[in-house]
Amino acid sequence: MPPIDINCDMGESFGNWTMGQDGEVMPYITSANIAGGFHAGDPHVMCETVELAADHDVGIGVHPGFPDKMGFGRRGIDATPEEVRDYVVYQLGALTAFAKRHGVTVAHVKPHGAMYSMLSESPEHARAVMEGMLEVDEELIYLATDMHIYEVARDVEGLRAVFEGYVDLDYRADRSLIVEKQLEERDPELVADRFVSIATDGVVKAANGEEIDVPADSICIHGDNPNAVEILEAIHDRLEEHGIELAPLSEIV
Amino acid sequence: MPPIDINCDMGESFGNWTMGQDGEVMPYITSANIAGGFHAGDPHVMCETVELAADHDVGIGVHPGFPDKMGFGRRGIDATPEEVRDYVVYQLGALTAFAKRHGVTVAHVKPHGAMYSMLSESPEHARAVMEGMLEVDEELIYLATDMHIYEVARDVEGLRAVFEGYVDLDYRADRSLIVEKQLEERDPELVADRFVSIATDGVVKAANGEEIDVPADSICIHGDNPNAVEILEAIHDRLEEHGIELAPLSEIV
Amino acid sequence: MPPIDINCDMGESFGNWTMGQDGEVMPYITSANIAGGFHAGDPHVMCETVELAADHDVGIGVHPGFPDKMGFGRRGIDATPEEVRDYVVYQLGALTAFAKRHGVTVAHVKPHGAMYSMLSESPEHARAVMEGMLEVDEELIYLATDMHIYEVARDVEGLRAVFEGYVDLDYRADRSLIVEKQLEERDPELVADRFVSIATDGVVKAANGEEIDVPADSICIHGDNPNAVEILEAIHDRLEEHGIELAPLSEIV
Amino acid sequence: MPPIDINCDMGESFGNWTMGQDGEVMPYITSANIAGGFHAGDPHVMCETVELAADHDVGIGVHPGFPDKMGFGRRGIDATPEEVRDYVVYQLGALTAFAKRHGVTVAHVKPHGAMYSMLSESPEHARAVMEGMLEVDEELIYLATDMHIYEVARDVEGLRAVFEGYVDLDYRADRSLIVEKQLEERDPELVADRFVSIATDGVVKAANGEEIDVPADSICIHGDNPNAVEILEAIHDRLEEHGIELAPLSEIV
Repeated sequence: MPPIDINCDMGESFGNWTMGQDGEVMPYITSANIAGGFHAGDPHVMCETVELAADHDVGIGVHPGFPDKMGFGRRGIDATPEEVRDYVVYQLGALTAFAKRHGVTVAHVKPHGAMYSMLSESPEHARAVMEGMLEVDEELIYLATDMHIYEVARDVEGLRAVFEGYVDLDYRADRSLIVEKQLEERDPELVADRFVSIATDGVVKAANGEEIDVPADSICIHGDNPNAVEILEAIHDRLEEHGIELAPLSEIV
Repeated sequence: MPPIDINCDMGESFGNWTMGQDGEVMPYITSANIAGGFHAGDPHVMCETVELAADHDVGIGVHPGFPDKMGFGRRGIDATPEEVRDYVVYQLGALTAFAKRHGVTVAHVKPHGAMYSMLSESPEHARAVMEGMLEVDEELIYLATDMHIYEVARDVEGLRAVFEGYVDLDYRADRSLIVEKQLEERDPELVADRFVSIATDGVVKAANGEEIDVPADSICIHGDNPNAVEILEAIHDRLEEHGIELAPLSEIV
Repeated sequence: MPPIDINCDMGESFGNWTMGQDGEVMPYITSANIAGGFHAGDPHVMCETVELAADHDVGIGVHPGFPDKMGFGRRGIDATPEEVRDYVVYQLGALTAFAKRHGVTVAHVKPHGAMYSMLSESPEHARAVMEGMLEVDEELIYLATDMHIYEVARDVEGLRAVFEGYVDLDYRADRSLIVEKQLEERDPELVADRFVSIATDGVVKAANGEEIDVPADSICIHGDNPNAVEILEAIHDRLEEHGIELAPLSEIV
Repeated sequence: MPPIDINCDMGESFGNWTMGQDGEVMPYITSANIAGGFHAGDPHVMCETVELAADHDVGIGVHPGFPDKMGFGRRGIDATPEEVRDYVVYQLGALTAFAKRHGVTVAHVKPHGAMYSMLSESPEHARAVMEGMLEVDEELIYLATDMHIYEVARDVEGLRAVFEGYVDLDYRADRSLIVEKQLEERDPELVADRFVSIATDGVVKAANGEEIDVPADSICIHGDNPNAVEILEAIHDRLEEHGIELAPLSEIV
């Protein structure tokens, strides 16, 4: 059984405004998706988040978003493929500089919110972003949130892609996610059951009870879920019993 | 006689607003200081400016500014040394990613406007920025606009620094510059005379007629001067006669 | 024959970046649509533009845009009706304060670029904006760029609306406009012919030669057209001969 | 004994980032200083905050800041008097439009953070702002945080000014405030004692035990103090016993 990664969005504070519970969550994850300063984050927050990840031997990736702090990068913007590519390249470069300062490496790219949705719906935008990131660093991994974009990524020559699954949200039978307006507390044991099920068998129960395939090499945990830490502890409690090993993305592909 | 560099601020357009005459000026210079998206520039402008420089074999550096587009980075902001360092690291990283896409290397750092003034007045801020840039890339060169900061730079272990002179502005006898509110056309021949004088003898005539030392290895030309191209042509017309060779910063130190 | 208004977008400079030729165009128009600081403009530019309009007895309105200076407000943003309404109310209020300082009144609202397109396509967004502006000031006029939105405006209880026509762009036979990527110089005499034709008969020739109805009480001139001033002079030269009177929007409805 | 006002900064959330506890604090205060969207706040937050204040019959004023969300308006920016005036006019106008939508009136202006400090140190900047606000609305009250600026305000022809005192911070004997980096919980009874002392006798004990004059007609409470609500309850519990009446600023001057 190959190791599995746990990734989490991080560094979404901005100036005097804080968000998430990065310090509490970091000890339990293996990859941090760090906001690039467009939808959230700023240079100082990025610097501190990279340092926090480095202190916990957590792999890092950039979590680039649209330039729309007021909308937290959750509103579609009709940008061209080249514009979106340049937004990703810019934020990727900025994070890379902080990584160098702290002696670590940016391993992956995982677009945020409305940018992710745009790439999922427009293969032309997705390819522009993926080719752009490869031109910057051919070792970079694309962390894919759905099968559409995973397949686009796998068609890009030389690009390594990892598919991620979710355990603190419910799947529909068609493997789409039921996204809540407001994240609710989740039963940590139920979430841990799902984690084990995906990690060992690549399957999970959808909301209608049907078992569906989720061939994920990484599991995304929402760090802003009110009981995220409890959930992560429940997951860690199961690892040994089931022989599940955790590893950052760079050790998985 | 060692070669000399000609540097110019570039990439200061923003979105639909254009500034400068980058395309016209680029053929005559050897180093481009490219705005990092804080006081001017944006990801698309940076991408295009790096490409333009690469097409002309012009060396590139980052021209980082304060996050103040409304004030064009020309107003002091009471930021801490760590904040300013992180602004520089962020913009340096962003430019580096575009450089990688275009197969070139970021060679130098030259802070813009009020950030430059702050570093010149506060050695603590200057050292924070210089140490930060070295932690990102120890090959980077600091392009120093005055002697105060040049000396701070030379005291930073491992940092290479280049002192720059001006020929399209007048010096006072104390080697401070007489900065105009609005750049005026300059007599190209007079400017070219000064260029030759600095390049060959390291001296120039101040406004009061006194000859002063300007031990510069790079000359800064204002690309937004109305007759910048004419000035640059006049300079190039003198090179052969005086045996002056041009070279980008990376070939000078 | 009722008087007709000439409106033009103004105040689209930002910080050190200039755009348009407001000073040259202002003497020829009767209504200025002033950018509200979101897609273009800033407090200082707004202040100066209001003063310029006041000096020429030109009526003013707000030209609100999406909060997207990098895209100049020309990219759709998936904002809710309430968000868009609040963007308009905010920019309207800001302009009103500058108007009060200069002893003039904000007469109208004309959304810019992608915000205009959104309102034209979504009556729900359009109504939210229109009701919001009436709640701020029930005297305000909505300047409508197409028939869809004109009809929505006329259905909003208590709202006065004016339909505007174009003479420096070509119409299709279905009264949609052929928008150019880059504004081109236009034959001033041809443009002036169209102006007279709309002002006197409410008709204009479409690109295919067909005569179409354009029942406009205001004509929009693009101030960033390279020969905008020449066009405006040609229009003014025809006024007396055809007995056409100019008046700002507030005197028309 | 004249009535006294309790004012509190409000509306400092931004997009998805929340700050303060406006809903909990609003029932206890008489004047809300609402952020204008430059250092904090956005159009939607402003709209909701005005509505919340209106629901509680709380007077409103604008709390304008420098255009520096990353620094929360707490960093000095070398802006000219005219620039600062225009920033205040812009934000004042924006808030006024939301006030009109909700049928209430903007009563006062209280600059935030580094802008307040600048006005306190530079009478030229202070006068530019004060004259600007009067040109917009001559009924507006300037809420003055220290005696320097209070005196400048009283010298501006036609301007009404109110001096405010603090009870959840300590005064030095020279009536300067000991500002904490991080607001700490305060003993509600001690704070309420101070409130009564200022409201009834215009005096308070400084940190060194000396009694000093604080001739305040308004008391500022920090809504982001961890026990702000408890403090406000303790203050309200004393009102009847001491015959202290609360009233918004507009009913005080």
